[in-house]
Amino acid sequence: MFDQLLAQKASENLKKVREKKPLIHNITNFVVMNYTANALLACGASPVMAHAAEEVEEMVSLAGALVLNIGTLTPQWVEAMLRAGKKANALRVPIVLDPVGSGATRLRTDSARRLARELALQVVRGNASEVLSFAEKGARTKGVDSVHSVEEAEEAAIVLAKELNTTLAITGKVDVITDGKRIFRVHNGHEMMGRVTGTGCTATVIIGAFLAVDPDPAEAAATGLAYFGLAGERAAQRSKTPGTYQIGLLDALYEIEEKELKQGARIEVARG
Amino acid sequence: MFDQLLAQKASENLKKVREKKPLIHNITNFVVMNYTANALLACGASPVMAHAAEEVEEMVSLAGALVLNIGTLTPQWVEAMLRAGKKANALRVPIVLDPVGSGATRLRTDSARRLARELALQVVRGNASEVLSFAEKGARTKGVDSVHSVEEAEEAAIVLAKELNTTLAITGKVDVITDGKRIFRVHNGHEMMGRVTGTGCTATVIIGAFLAVDPDPAEAAATGLAYFGLAGERAAQRSKTPGTYQIGLLDALYEIEEKELKQGARIEVARG
Amino acid sequence: MFDQLLAQKASENLKKVREKKPLIHNITNFVVMNYTANALLACGASPVMAHAAEEVEEMVSLAGALVLNIGTLTPQWVEAMLRAGKKANALRVPIVLDPVGSGATRLRTDSARRLARELALQVVRGNASEVLSFAEKGARTKGVDSVHSVEEAEEAAIVLAKELNTTLAITGKVDVITDGKRIFRVHNGHEMMGRVTGTGCTATVIIGAFLAVDPDPAEAAATGLAYFGLAGERAAQRSKTPGTYQIGLLDALYEIEEKELKQGARIEVARG
Repeated sequence: MFDQLLAQKASENLKKVREKKPLIHNITNFVVMNYTANALLACGASPVMAHAAEEVEEMVSLAGALVLNIGTLTPQWVEAMLRAGKKANALRVPIVLDPVGSGATRLRTDSARRLARELALQVVRGNASEVLSFAEKGARTKGVDSVHSVEEAEEAAIVLAKELNTTLAITGKVDVITDGKRIFRVHNGHEMMGRVTGTGCTATVIIGAFLAVDPDPAEAAATGLAYFGLAGERAAQRSKTPGTYQIGLLDALYEIEEKELKQGARIEVARG
Repeated sequence: MFDQLLAQKASENLKKVREKKPLIHNITNFVVMNYTANALLACGASPVMAHAAEEVEEMVSLAGALVLNIGTLTPQWVEAMLRAGKKANALRVPIVLDPVGSGATRLRTDSARRLARELALQVVRGNASEVLSFAEKGARTKGVDSVHSVEEAEEAAIVLAKELNTTLAITGKVDVITDGKRIFRVHNGHEMMGRVTGTGCTATVIIGAFLAVDPDPAEAAATGLAYFGLAGERAAQRSKTPGTYQIGLLDALYEIEEKELKQGARIEVARG
Repeated sequence: MFDQLLAQKASENLKKVREKKPLIHNITNFVVMNYTANALLACGASPVMAHAAEEVEEMVSLAGALVLNIGTLTPQWVEAMLRAGKKANALRVPIVLDPVGSGATRLRTDSARRLARELALQVVRGNASEVLSFAEKGARTKGVDSVHSVEEAEEAAIVLAKELNTTLAITGKVDVITDGKRIFRVHNGHEMMGRVTGTGCTATVIIGAFLAVDPDPAEAAATGLAYFGLAGERAAQRSKTPGTYQIGLLDALYEIEEKELKQGARIEVARG
């Protein structure tokens, strides 16, 4: 059921991140900045957070990938995201967007759609309702939690990915990744990941790190999510309470060996 | 000495939070955003942080309670707090205010007083000097630490609660809660809570979660503080150093069972 | 090889911080605010974060030291830093600057230089490339990581310290502190400190706490870094994974006894 080549690629991508230590430029929300910076360090990448319009173009020029995250957004931050994103597009620096809370308020939905319209995004990572909010009949979310099942989202996602000309990575009990043609399902992960704030945002930055070493966005997303999910499983072996789990998840990202990931990645090719 | 009905209610409130998972909208300071989001998740609620003037009215419309916290404030954030607060008042979404550092600078004192004047606040939670700074003869605080004893604050508090037409929750060695008529004293807690940043702010968000399920602000505050204090005691059984204590406190919020809270809540009715 | 008088002074400075609990006013970046606040509490100081132009002068008037940190800067924050810094200079409140990422973008380099030009800074703490970016031939950094060895920086640093009329604290495998005349080398520390975000910023706030009790900036910086490095060593005895290490580092700051620091501080006087 699980694809051996993609498991092998997950392992290789992790090795490349640890060797190349790509700089990942984040324009992200205040809640998760510390945690996602630590997660990037733990996986071997080099994080930088910078949001001033005056410096984002220079900063992204040094980066291997750009992470845009609209949690705690303001219109000024969205302008900085657009500026950074356009420079990233010009330089072919890959971008991953996390549309936190899109569908919950007009500002978030409009900002997410505007970023998708004005930028070439390699990956959009969100829960089902966030991702489906890009469709005209966007679902209204209950805060940042998902209200759709991953299953019902799959068919809509493949259509939406084509429309948006991007790769969608919809995370949930099973993660679904589609570039409009292929569909991958990632079966790694643990329910404790939902008891800690910012694990969705962390999935996004891990995808960012993998995008910096893998030119295939769908495979970068699927392999990054398999790695992150495996870390979530490993952390749950040690702790089932959210404080220590949150810390153990950073430890697990650091500890997982490449061969472990090759054995543990559970990526299904639903449509090849 | 300790009230059995309030201990019972603490237990019931915790049960309701875990069942209903109310969305708690926070406009709060940068220092504690991650920690209070995790604390809300650990107790069973659903946190969202959003401060853009363009979206706070929509966001608070989805919420079970609104938390306003003036740490790391700027005038623009205070405007967003007022906008969110007015919408909350119109929709009868309860509000808890944390006047971090009120009394220390004019901006903080004036902002706290303005929020109390222009909004109907269900609860104001602070240390003694912060809460007493609402009085015209406000005490000048040493940063965010308390300079008054809870004892000397009690009589002033009952007068002030009447004037402000709110419930005051003054936290310290013993927490004092008054709505201008009743006085509750909460004897739960541990001194290690003062060695970690943001525990005051966390007390406030827990009150927010309890306000979302309990229409009596004084009882929501007292029962919420008993729960949080009990978590603080439990965490201290495992660790007396601040790093691990901070993490253990999140674990304890998650682990405490409703029957445990019923047994462990130490709420005194000083005036019924 | 290691100086006994400075080891003794490290111990005395730590004792003074714990006794006086100086208020340390921070205008710092979003990534590290929670962590550095907890580090200051763990070492015995009292942190406050405040960046509004409307309150920074009042806040710094209450403080024992001012920490300026340009990570996640915007021009508005730099203005607030200047305002706070000028007031600090007028009141003789010592200032430590952390030029995070200076050399990586023009905004950061220009802001760091402007702060150094318009304010009297007692200490500037950064990695080699950040500190050397103050020189006209500033090195271009790879994000916030150092590209120069501490060794090649030492001679340049003594010249630069004289030019800037400040004490430079250049952290790396060995920390080098110079006021333009003396050179101290601090041999405490552990490589795990580089696997956690914000340890450089934390070194800076510890120097801030020591500056609040020691009028000699070079000795405050060297003794503060010895204490922080010893905490880093102690934390590594318990954990070699970044999540638990980050937490253990806070624990170690809290646990280290004064006599332990006297024994463990490894400060070399390279030029007396």
